Amino acid sequence: MKHGGDLLRYQEAYDGELVDFSSNINPLGPPPGLKEKIMEGLDSLSVYPDIHYRALRRSVADYLQCDVQNVLLGNGSVELIDLFVFLAKRVVLCIPSFSEYELRAQIHQKRIHRIPYKDDFTLDLPTLYRNLKEGDLLILGNPNNPTGLRINKETLLDLYEKVKQAGAFLLLDEAFFEFCPRDYDSISCFSDDRYAQVAVLRAATKFFALPGLRLGYGCASPEVAEQIKRLQLPWSINALADIAGRFIFEDKAYLQRSRAYIKKERDYLLSELSPIQGLHVFPTQANFILIKLDHWSEEEALAHFLQEGLLIRPCSSFPGLDSRTIRVAIKDRVNNDRLLHAFKKLERKAGGENKGYT
Amino acid sequence: MKHGGDLLRYQEAYDGELVDFSSNINPLGPPPGLKEKIMEGLDSLSVYPDIHYRALRRSVADYLQCDVQNVLLGNGSVELIDLFVFLAKRVVLCIPSFSEYELRAQIHQKRIHRIPYKDDFTLDLPTLYRNLKEGDLLILGNPNNPTGLRINKETLLDLYEKVKQAGAFLLLDEAFFEFCPRDYDSISCFSDDRYAQVAVLRAATKFFALPGLRLGYGCASPEVAEQIKRLQLPWSINALADIAGRFIFEDKAYLQRSRAYIKKERDYLLSELSPIQGLHVFPTQANFILIKLDHWSEEEALAHFLQEGLLIRPCSSFPGLDSRTIRVAIKDRVNNDRLLHAFKKLERKAGGENKGYT
Repeated sequence: MKHGGDLLRYQEAYDGELVDFSSNINPLGPPPGLKEKIMEGLDSLSVYPDIHYRALRRSVADYLQCDVQNVLLGNGSVELIDLFVFLAKRVVLCIPSFSEYELRAQIHQKRIHRIPYKDDFTLDLPTLYRNLKEGDLLILGNPNNPTGLRINKETLLDLYEKVKQAGAFLLLDEAFFEFCPRDYDSISCFSDDRYAQVAVLRAATKFFALPGLRLGYGCASPEVAEQIKRLQLPWSINALADIAGRFIFEDKAYLQRSRAYIKKERDYLLSELSPIQGLHVFPTQANFILIKLDHWSEEEALAHFLQEGLLIRPCSSFPGLDSRTIRVAIKDRVNNDRLLHAFKKLERKAGGENKGYT
Repeated sequence: MKHGGDLLRYQEAYDGELVDFSSNINPLGPPPGLKEKIMEGLDSLSVYPDIHYRALRRSVADYLQCDVQNVLLGNGSVELIDLFVFLAKRVVLCIPSFSEYELRAQIHQKRIHRIPYKDDFTLDLPTLYRNLKEGDLLILGNPNNPTGLRINKETLLDLYEKVKQAGAFLLLDEAFFEFCPRDYDSISCFSDDRYAQVAVLRAATKFFALPGLRLGYGCASPEVAEQIKRLQLPWSINALADIAGRFIFEDKAYLQRSRAYIKKERDYLLSELSPIQGLHVFPTQANFILIKLDHWSEEEALAHFLQEGLLIRPCSSFPGLDSRTIRVAIKDRVNNDRLLHAFKKLERKAGGENKGYT
């Protein structure tokens, strides 16, 4: 299982609608009014999108507080990841991380250098700095998936200087950034034209709850943004993603509400999960939680949760994680309570079956 | 101007709504009922599309009368073109042809071998056969854009044998195939499993009038289809393209109506254009017409038609065509008559200005 969200594969295991804890989508759904906006714009399917996406670029620039010429757009952020990988001499990854980084590097036949995160899933900076070389593309999740931690601001600025000195390039994949506490804004860290060796990627997929829309975006120096645009397929972003991207960033109340909702549910889930025996719950700033199981394999856990109508994400397919690790999304209170209930049931099973192998 | 359809760039030149003769879209618009189907499915934007597009593949397979494992899917057919180019050793093109073939080859740093079409825009087969080598990807528009001619069935089957003998691969870009007279079906030519060195591409863009949707599709051998799928970005096709692709092929009456409509308007335009002095009108089986101008450059023509509220396609950006060549789409009768009127006006201008340089 390379990705979360493949509900169809598991649906038959449960007689009812599965709740998908394997993909990490804003439980509040897309911004209100978006559906109506798209309905009004359905005729745009019959004309080519603006090949330069002029209005969409302006909207993204306003949201990210950068200039129009800094804007990156993609058919999902994964298209942008692919293009940066395409330009790299070598790809440096900290593992575990999103599987597409490595997959795209393999497809483009790039050398890959993997550096494990430390046991607490913070960056192993000395090893990282020692290994960076000219032409490297360093891809870091900020916060990282599946581990959930963000790089703090001081580390990030220091990291950038080291990347620059090495003649490398830093790609920050911030698909989950808006879910994090608002300690700092990574993009304003790099909004100055001096920062030519970094790009920041965001996406409509997770925070705006629009995985079907396919809209990735981000910012980089004007030179890098132009270079990426030259490599892209024409009309890579569909007309409805174009319309949605000119709408979703406007509703500041939705942004705040979503962030606050996730914070409350994250605090709740972490505090309720922590006392459960047999779970090692890792800290997170994102909208998902990585959990190590003392008594069960990921496959046993998957089967257990499926019986409860819940799809979780087994994590051994992430290089650097073993088959006792799972990831769960943070959802709405009703479903989070179902998840907690199922975890408690799993633990009672362990007691009953006397599986004491820790 | 690399592509047609960049209306925004020209809109300010005309005080009114420009009619776009530069992009070749079915004038009947998308199949009836599609809008409602998409409206019903808008909630699917909030879930990941099926990562395997199982239902969409079945729908395409039914339409193309191939097996599910033969089906190719892309974010527009241009994504599929890009992936085939990526796999090629060398790219062989007959020029003039769609500019993306060469552009994608440049981006993937592939060697390019160009073979000009003959003066009547049929294939120069002896030169083509002499030049084909192992690992070549031969890309042919069928019918070809911007010239409008299709390869006849006997030539196509013979061509395939030569491609196979050379150890090359044939990519037929059939974005405009459904507009052609129904003499033969290229896909049924290659539906047998023996045909492992050919792929046929189609698209929702032109015939189904859905350029904003981004749905390309096609068929190839199961091995080739699997190889392409492995290279693709996950969720490359958006959720609404997924929904549309499960609907648009059903309406056989729409297919027939569109084909008949284009045939009638093609015959009408060709017969009305031919007597106009100063135009050389090339024959076409597609929904666009290539025209060589005796008295005007493409830029003069572009300016003239813009004054009339019509956007045409200058063609000197196609390698192999000069700056006296333009392309116009076949549209509905009212607009076709506006186009004819504007051509006649252009010719009268030539008389008045006494531009006798042929």
